[in-house]
Amino acid sequence: MVEPKFRIVEAIYPGMTQLDFTAPHTVFSRIPGAETIVASEPGGEIVSDGGLTFAGTTRMADIDGCDLLFFPGGFAATEVACDAAFMAQAKRLGGGAKYLTSVCTGSIILAATGLIKGRRAACHWAWRDMLSLFGVIPDPSRVSRDGDVITGGGVTAGMDFALVVAAELAGEAFAQGLQLGLEYAPAPPFNAGRPETAPPEVLARVRANMEAIMPARLAQAKAAAAAF
Amino acid sequence: MVEPKFRIVEAIYPGMTQLDFTAPHTVFSRIPGAETIVASEPGGEIVSDGGLTFAGTTRMADIDGCDLLFFPGGFAATEVACDAAFMAQAKRLGGGAKYLTSVCTGSIILAATGLIKGRRAACHWAWRDMLSLFGVIPDPSRVSRDGDVITGGGVTAGMDFALVVAAELAGEAFAQGLQLGLEYAPAPPFNAGRPETAPPEVLARVRANMEAIMPARLAQAKAAAAAF
Repeated sequence: MVEPKFRIVEAIYPGMTQLDFTAPHTVFSRIPGAETIVASEPGGEIVSDGGLTFAGTTRMADIDGCDLLFFPGGFAATEVACDAAFMAQAKRLGGGAKYLTSVCTGSIILAATGLIKGRRAACHWAWRDMLSLFGVIPDPSRVSRDGDVITGGGVTAGMDFALVVAAELAGEAFAQGLQLGLEYAPAPPFNAGRPETAPPEVLARVRANMEAIMPARLAQAKAAAAAF
Repeated sequence: MVEPKFRIVEAIYPGMTQLDFTAPHTVFSRIPGAETIVASEPGGEIVSDGGLTFAGTTRMADIDGCDLLFFPGGFAATEVACDAAFMAQAKRLGGGAKYLTSVCTGSIILAATGLIKGRRAACHWAWRDMLSLFGVIPDPSRVSRDGDVITGGGVTAGMDFALVVAAELAGEAFAQGLQLGLEYAPAPPFNAGRPETAPPEVLARVRANMEAIMPARLAQAKAAAAAF
């Protein structure tokens, strides 16, 4: 078990993909002895994808430090990486944390802190290569572990990632109990979850949709990398 | 593709397991032509497990009808099944819906509407047998389909369930594109997600924890069944 008051800060922002955050939160909030703080740069209400609004987030500037810092991803991740106010708090909190963690494009935010230069990190398959702009080594693993840097791939990798973190903090048997309680025995109705397994026409359509938004996102990532 | 304004109502409540709701919401909110309404009996803010607060929910009484009604689960499900105000709205909305759906112990709420008597439904493994109190046939499947009644097992079954619903409403290729976008190629770090696969000592511990709360929950389910 972790010591009392092991503090986990989940740093969320408008336009995040809420499942990147909510699946790990389900696990983190059940770790005995852990204090889980849902934080944002301005504090208060944060609107995520699909119109979900999370109320009562803590202002990042009001948190004096944490043991584990976590960034979920979202289409807005590269915007966040360019947001000086958010990134100043991210660097401050991350600088004192034992564990630096992220899921999906949250790894771009983590990379943009400069705190994981030269380390490996997982990321969403369509965005993964952007990590190299920040001197971070893109890792195609579902969950990547490089010392105290623990990161997950796209969106739903957050559950696999969070169970790895739970095992690290509270032991494997505890993590397995959580898995049983959450009945995490996945059975996807299709085998289309990775570019390597998706039907070619499905991959082509998803890639085409991505191409419409990617140039602007890549430009933001480059701007964030230049500033850092 | 579904017709414009196909309306999905997600009926949430205090004490729900937010992942039961947030994973399906991720999928439902991306279905083109679907309008997704996050609803609750009182409207406004709803606090779920792990202290997450969802703001701006719509009052169920203010919704004139829907095409698909969805109930997430949670430890509070049997309380909700005894809540006359919630259940009156659940029956009204469910009575006019084409699809009746739920995940985890949300199936107990759905069963308590009386609208799926004689039908099969999935539920969390530890709670599944309670369905028979309401004349519903417990189905151990990860995702259960009995006509227009589509239900999922415990918590994380919500993602598998939601992809089945997405395929029904928008076609298999569309659902596969969502799966790829969400990188849903699960790789649990342990194989402890079902009673049949969990290490015996893990199962024993989780069962012991459940036994502490189950008598009160079973009494609530019986009271709900008696009232119905």
